[in-house]
Amino acid sequence: MEYLDYLFSPRSIAIIGATDKKEKVGYAIFKNIVEGGYKGKIYPVNKRLDYLEGYRVYRSVLDIEDSIDLAIISIPIQYVPELFEQLGRKRVKTAVVISAGGKETGEKGKQIEEAIKERAKKYRIRFLGPNCLGFVNTLIDLNANFGLDKPLKGKTAFISQSGALFTAIMDWALREKIGFSYAVSIGNMADLTFGDIIEYLGKKEEVDTILLYMESLTDPEKFANVSRKISQKKPIIVAKAGRSESGQKAAVSHTGAIAGKDFLYSALFKRCGIVRSDNVLQLFDLTEAFSKQPVPEGNRFVVVTNAGGPGVMAADQFDKWNVKPVSLSEETIERLNKLLPRVWSHNNPVDIIGDAPPERYRKTLEILFEAPEIDGIICILTPQFMTKPYETAVQFYEVSKGKKKPFYPVLLGGEKLEKAKLFLEEHNIPVFETPEEAVDSMFLSYSYTYRKRLVAEDILEKSRGKNYKTVKHIIDKNLNEDNILLTEFETKKILSAYGIPVNDTYNTISVDEAVNVVRNIGFPVVMKINSPDILHKSEAGGVITGIKDIDSVKKSFEKILQNAKKYKPDAKIEGIIVEKQVSGDFELIIGSSFDKLFKQYIMFGMGGTMVEFFKDVSFDFPPLSKVAAKELIASTRIYRLLKSGFRDKKPVEINGLIDILMNVSDLLIDFPQIEELDINPLLAKENKFYAVDGRIKLRRFEGKNTILGGVN
Amino acid sequence: MEYLDYLFSPRSIAIIGATDKKEKVGYAIFKNIVEGGYKGKIYPVNKRLDYLEGYRVYRSVLDIEDSIDLAIISIPIQYVPELFEQLGRKRVKTAVVISAGGKETGEKGKQIEEAIKERAKKYRIRFLGPNCLGFVNTLIDLNANFGLDKPLKGKTAFISQSGALFTAIMDWALREKIGFSYAVSIGNMADLTFGDIIEYLGKKEEVDTILLYMESLTDPEKFANVSRKISQKKPIIVAKAGRSESGQKAAVSHTGAIAGKDFLYSALFKRCGIVRSDNVLQLFDLTEAFSKQPVPEGNRFVVVTNAGGPGVMAADQFDKWNVKPVSLSEETIERLNKLLPRVWSHNNPVDIIGDAPPERYRKTLEILFEAPEIDGIICILTPQFMTKPYETAVQFYEVSKGKKKPFYPVLLGGEKLEKAKLFLEEHNIPVFETPEEAVDSMFLSYSYTYRKRLVAEDILEKSRGKNYKTVKHIIDKNLNEDNILLTEFETKKILSAYGIPVNDTYNTISVDEAVNVVRNIGFPVVMKINSPDILHKSEAGGVITGIKDIDSVKKSFEKILQNAKKYKPDAKIEGIIVEKQVSGDFELIIGSSFDKLFKQYIMFGMGGTMVEFFKDVSFDFPPLSKVAAKELIASTRIYRLLKSGFRDKKPVEINGLIDILMNVSDLLIDFPQIEELDINPLLAKENKFYAVDGRIKLRRFEGKNTILGGVN
Repeated sequence: MEYLDYLFSPRSIAIIGATDKKEKVGYAIFKNIVEGGYKGKIYPVNKRLDYLEGYRVYRSVLDIEDSIDLAIISIPIQYVPELFEQLGRKRVKTAVVISAGGKETGEKGKQIEEAIKERAKKYRIRFLGPNCLGFVNTLIDLNANFGLDKPLKGKTAFISQSGALFTAIMDWALREKIGFSYAVSIGNMADLTFGDIIEYLGKKEEVDTILLYMESLTDPEKFANVSRKISQKKPIIVAKAGRSESGQKAAVSHTGAIAGKDFLYSALFKRCGIVRSDNVLQLFDLTEAFSKQPVPEGNRFVVVTNAGGPGVMAADQFDKWNVKPVSLSEETIERLNKLLPRVWSHNNPVDIIGDAPPERYRKTLEILFEAPEIDGIICILTPQFMTKPYETAVQFYEVSKGKKKPFYPVLLGGEKLEKAKLFLEEHNIPVFETPEEAVDSMFLSYSYTYRKRLVAEDILEKSRGKNYKTVKHIIDKNLNEDNILLTEFETKKILSAYGIPVNDTYNTISVDEAVNVVRNIGFPVVMKINSPDILHKSEAGGVITGIKDIDSVKKSFEKILQNAKKYKPDAKIEGIIVEKQVSGDFELIIGSSFDKLFKQYIMFGMGGTMVEFFKDVSFDFPPLSKVAAKELIASTRIYRLLKSGFRDKKPVEINGLIDILMNVSDLLIDFPQIEELDINPLLAKENKFYAVDGRIKLRRFEGKNTILGGVN
Repeated sequence: MEYLDYLFSPRSIAIIGATDKKEKVGYAIFKNIVEGGYKGKIYPVNKRLDYLEGYRVYRSVLDIEDSIDLAIISIPIQYVPELFEQLGRKRVKTAVVISAGGKETGEKGKQIEEAIKERAKKYRIRFLGPNCLGFVNTLIDLNANFGLDKPLKGKTAFISQSGALFTAIMDWALREKIGFSYAVSIGNMADLTFGDIIEYLGKKEEVDTILLYMESLTDPEKFANVSRKISQKKPIIVAKAGRSESGQKAAVSHTGAIAGKDFLYSALFKRCGIVRSDNVLQLFDLTEAFSKQPVPEGNRFVVVTNAGGPGVMAADQFDKWNVKPVSLSEETIERLNKLLPRVWSHNNPVDIIGDAPPERYRKTLEILFEAPEIDGIICILTPQFMTKPYETAVQFYEVSKGKKKPFYPVLLGGEKLEKAKLFLEEHNIPVFETPEEAVDSMFLSYSYTYRKRLVAEDILEKSRGKNYKTVKHIIDKNLNEDNILLTEFETKKILSAYGIPVNDTYNTISVDEAVNVVRNIGFPVVMKINSPDILHKSEAGGVITGIKDIDSVKKSFEKILQNAKKYKPDAKIEGIIVEKQVSGDFELIIGSSFDKLFKQYIMFGMGGTMVEFFKDVSFDFPPLSKVAAKELIASTRIYRLLKSGFRDKKPVEINGLIDILMNVSDLLIDFPQIEELDINPLLAKENKFYAVDGRIKLRRFEGKNTILGGVN
């Protein structure tokens, strides 16, 4: 038995704050539990009542003779810490704190929450909330919440951080005939978090899809580790609000949480095999799709339609996901030729013509279900003159029953399709109202398959710790001197030590030395000021490029020194850097930074001075595996050019780039003191890479610097 | 009286092909007209029948004594040309050719269509179709089609090129209680086109919104001229399939039409003040929004909600349209403070808290309707414990009645909201199921206002014909010599003549001349091969840049000549170009090309070698007005940088860029012989612009080269 079984499958429940006042939450919860058909023991607790609708009411939880698995608490929050003392003495196992007024209301609420957590810890009581609506376990008919009508039974589980979305989605699901095994309003997550609940539900065989509505995470590390395991067995779908800056501002003012950067949520979901839905409609659609149909094994989809236009719209929408319509095999086309009118489209979308009777749909679908070149079927029905919607829907059901490919019907119309729609919904087939919704759902459903496979190969390894000591020495020295910003020169030494290629770079302290260096490395060269006090080197006139002869080397040396002294008379000058001027076909960027919630993260993308304008970057977290590094690269738009070349630019060796990213990841894992790292640009030309400029910002830090894996 | 009144409001109708066979289209149409309640004369025509459900049947249209305004034809298409001879003799005014089998089926069908058109022209019969479903005019209860149940009455008009979408959308509208005055299935548009029908419906005061489902245009010129006028008075909304390459491929195979490039449809819609919907759901939503609510006058929107999460989602979605939530005025906040619980959000989204009763919604909305800083209201209702959905919906109706600001309620849930939803639909208030749908509709509805204003200022002027003769001379000379590709040198002469600034560029035929030129224009210079036979100059080793001294000028002259001779021994060499090497902060592109359907068009955007990768370009058609040129620039992403500058790049003088674009437009209008024009890059730095490379492709052509306006 799992400990959380006490919470979700209790043998006895104390309802603290149960009341006979019908407008009160305490009444609604009591009523919902009683009327829901729960078979365990129910103990209402209220100081002022003796009986409540036939149940004996207890003055205190301590008065109950029976042992209590779960206490559901709906009293003003200021009394809850003291109540937990009683629960502890009574050895109550678990609790649901419905009461609002916690950290979402400000500092005082936060203190009360802390007090509750402290008592709970002391007595080892695990609890949901505060500020939640409760939960449902339909397996034992336990409707332990206020606000929900009794949900249908099914195999979807839902965890919602927002009470409003909890009721809205469950209410919508009732209409769409979607059943649930568990639904949990998770509230402020003072104790039990997303990670805990996902871990619990992930093990239940009565759960085959987990749906999340999230506003913020409090436990990214646990969440990640748990989700990476569970998503191998069952899909996790998440809707998260606060994608935009204005949205996030609204979200923070509403939940009072440290939200973390939204793009890091997206990166984390991806790394964990979780599918993120973009909006509420998509969440609805995905819930239907996952709960009612199998997941596609690949991305070769076919569209069947009795009307050209909607078929075109489906093709348009697949294009937005970069999915081309799969070509039908000769065999499939031949089989369809025998069946369909001469004027059928002979292609995908399969236009079976406006007069299509139910049998034509059925036979077409039979052929397509059997075709090995197809992973999923979208089937559009418009109400035309000869169309028999209901009879066609019956065929849809018959032909798709028990099949392993997903089948998504689109019923495009209104009145005439109502009966057909109802039939399909009652027979557990999702119904989409527009071609685009079906396409989005099909693709996102496939993306679960895709991501699941990535996670399976994404083995988190410990750093290989190359020239650990060299780097440690540089970092320690600087931190000892209270210097947290490393110069380009030192940054390159660190990068180089960890196998990240840099262009030949030397520090010189005299004109003669500079000339000697140039004789060794050859022209052209770049010369730059080397000073911990001058970080914006160009601005200071501290960079001269395209130096092609000895005379210019000499002049440049003096010129840079002069400029630096003029720019900042008291700057400490460590020398003049002389480096080989290299060129590349592509300017890339590799960066790393630190987020309070998500710890260290890594960025890769198109580099140069216009990074912020192009915004062609993607994110992930250390440690990177090969597969994660590959995905990080492949998630950018520039990847297509890197892979295939572009005009006079030859393709870039992607494996070389993967190695560099993994080396950066190792560096970050080995040195949590690196708070920020910037390599921009990283020049790339075929299999050659050069970090030609770089910057590191340090901090004093020990311990684990990443939310992923069991490393360090 | 308009001529098309004979078609849409006929006094008498002959139904040719009316039959008693109930599965036939000819029966369905007859039945629909009779049962629809049409008050005019109905004359069924069928060679094999005497009576049909109480109506006398005529053997031929010639047997009818009465005059006939409209013939509806549902006989096999091969008999239709001959039938038109009879219609002609009978002086029938208009027709609807239902029969399929026209150009959509291939060459033979196309010939039949041509034959029908010819007869129709001869007898001046205007007709809809072939391959259409007919139409509805609810004003006179004329349901002249097959496949539709009788629509509700209203002020929306709908024109559909696809029969399937015609029935699907009308069927959906019945369920959503949206009424229509006219709905027209336009079919193959052999005679009457989108332009004709829009022109007709645009004049009707019973039409206040025009909805189009389009797969292709046949009359872009008429369509543009008509739409630009009508959109000043009433919104036109279009859904067009075939946005992607695969979609367009499917569309062409399905309609057999020359589709034209999809991005030019988008550009044309924009220039005509038409709103394009992106998908079917959006089309549904926009239809509701436009038919049931006023259009917002500006883009300052507020979101009211009883739940934080959905408010955040609305803010996220507005962000996708680059719309920030408007800040509430101090006065509005004060008024809300007096009304709302202490913990309300104090900001937009206005979170009025989960326990909001109907009165709180009403009073909040009253304040927001009165607030001058707000142009439109989105109001989210989730079914929480205290929520009274129906009573709240009644308040929504009461408070929004007769208001001039749009009011879009979002009912987020299912079962518990059904009654409220029904009430609102019956009271002509649109209901959205998700925050994102409401936001998209609000923004697109506003975009109508925005575009309408642009079109009003977009006066199409005739070219100002600068150095017309200079250019004419160059073009004539080249065409006379059968040379259609102009060199950079000649291109720059043309550009310069029309006021498009180029960098100093000279053709030199000797080293001495080159040296002289350089002494005049100063260093640095670029030298390039000037040969009509070498277009890829760099590839040929025909370009040397960064020349900074006389010695290099001399060497470069020889080197380029050598390279050119090696690259193409028989190339005609006209000299070596010497040009001032200029630099700019931004590389832009101005291009022009020719589309079979849309004629000449203009492109503007981010230039350089990566144009195809960045795809940051926008399109329009000549002639450009100032406002159109401005919009062309503002539609790119790079515009933001041009306007505000970026790091060390200063802002660019946008008016200078507008002038250049208008000059390009003049050039194109004056010289329809210019089939393609490329200026890439156009360097820009503050108020300085230089076309540093260019290319023109000519063709023999006279006449009007643009689909816009009454120019030339």
